[in-house]
Amino acid sequence: MKIIGEKINGTRKRVAQAIAERDAEYIRDLAIKQTEAGSTWLDVNAGTRPDHEPDDLVWLIENIQAVVETPLALDSANPKALNVAIQAVNKTPMINSISGEPDRLEQILPIVAKHGCEVIALAMDDKKIPETFDKRMEVIDMVLQHTRAAGIPDGKVYVDPLALTIATMNQSAMIACDTIRAVHGKYPDLHFTMGLSNISFGLPARKQVNRGFLILAMQAGLDCAILDPLDKELRAAIVTTELLLGQDKYCKGYLKASRAGLFD
Amino acid sequence: MKIIGEKINGTRKRVAQAIAERDAEYIRDLAIKQTEAGSTWLDVNAGTRPDHEPDDLVWLIENIQAVVETPLALDSANPKALNVAIQAVNKTPMINSISGEPDRLEQILPIVAKHGCEVIALAMDDKKIPETFDKRMEVIDMVLQHTRAAGIPDGKVYVDPLALTIATMNQSAMIACDTIRAVHGKYPDLHFTMGLSNISFGLPARKQVNRGFLILAMQAGLDCAILDPLDKELRAAIVTTELLLGQDKYCKGYLKASRAGLFD
Repeated sequence: MKIIGEKINGTRKRVAQAIAERDAEYIRDLAIKQTEAGSTWLDVNAGTRPDHEPDDLVWLIENIQAVVETPLALDSANPKALNVAIQAVNKTPMINSISGEPDRLEQILPIVAKHGCEVIALAMDDKKIPETFDKRMEVIDMVLQHTRAAGIPDGKVYVDPLALTIATMNQSAMIACDTIRAVHGKYPDLHFTMGLSNISFGLPARKQVNRGFLILAMQAGLDCAILDPLDKELRAAIVTTELLLGQDKYCKGYLKASRAGLFD
Repeated sequence: MKIIGEKINGTRKRVAQAIAERDAEYIRDLAIKQTEAGSTWLDVNAGTRPDHEPDDLVWLIENIQAVVETPLALDSANPKALNVAIQAVNKTPMINSISGEPDRLEQILPIVAKHGCEVIALAMDDKKIPETFDKRMEVIDMVLQHTRAAGIPDGKVYVDPLALTIATMNQSAMIACDTIRAVHGKYPDLHFTMGLSNISFGLPARKQVNRGFLILAMQAGLDCAILDPLDKELRAAIVTTELLLGQDKYCKGYLKASRAGLFD
């Protein structure tokens, strides 16, 4: 299971403040902690100040790279910001994200292709999340046509099946899991990723729901997730699910996590 | 999800002591607590004193029935003890259990048929748990031939797919889940139940493994489990998984559990 550490995100109030005040220490600390907790990538989102986005992204990248070597997931829908940011990274980044939206495909895919990036592809069209499984499959088919035409191998694409909150849509988690299974069957080289927290929007004890959803989605084939790696219970659930899915030979990962105190 | 409360089991030291000393208060307290925690049945196992089993079972049953109306799961492989116990129960009990073992089928099935009991059928033959999925299916086919011949409807049979510890068999949880899926496909009216704790034998932080296994097995079709209903985290996982599987309309069960403090 690969983890994209979600915490350096300028849409979060405390991070926005750190960006505005150029509080490097706060950002560096998040980078170190998320790396120590096993992040494969660190998401970098400069937040909601479009004029400042290129500068803010570069400042974030430089500060993160000053303390860790973890590859980054550049989280922006702005091609200009991405083009600037990509000059600042030390390692090939992941791009977060494309979707079926034509503008985004046209402007962001060339960046992905040129730099050999991994890319997250959202199963949505023109900013609307399709409610049905069939419609999501259509969107994914269309996005895959574009990524393949751009020369991006399927193995670099991380499909996010997207989950609406289960508070208003009873079958939401199952639709996401079914989408993963079906897309995996059709395109076996693709990867899957997901932000977990949408599923529990509007419910109490959200972490409980997010954690259960992660376990079910891993069984369906999810092999990457955008999450808070500092959430010990969530990491414990990942390690335990890898064990139960038969992916942890000799229980090595589980026993190591136990010795490190993850289950305490 | 139906729950068989596991705690009144004479193979547990403290319960064996209560049985030997005729400590009715201890047993009654377990019956009340497990009922309050939502048990559908209470397992009743008189332990390892064969000569005393009929008397001990009746004593247990009378004390449980003095305080709760929850139906019982009579946990014994001894037809003599079962025949005595079944005279003492107020409600039709579940019988725990039969297997592919010929003696057990021959002696216990008539009791199940005569009294219209639910029955747990273990996917094992002559006391050995088959390692492969195919072999388990064979055993289940054979047991089902016998239950059907005895006039027991499939809807009264709870198949326990049995899970060996994952510490020595990497694919153990997946084999159990695959067995549930395949048996459910072949015999859609059957139910499924499982003791959870075998899966984690020999590992640290066993509750962690048991809980994850329960979630994965519920997705495969498990609709009943033998477990400790006083384990709050386990019950929280059940309620959350029912929600995620789309079985909890309007999130009613989840919200009720939240208000009752299950997630605190």
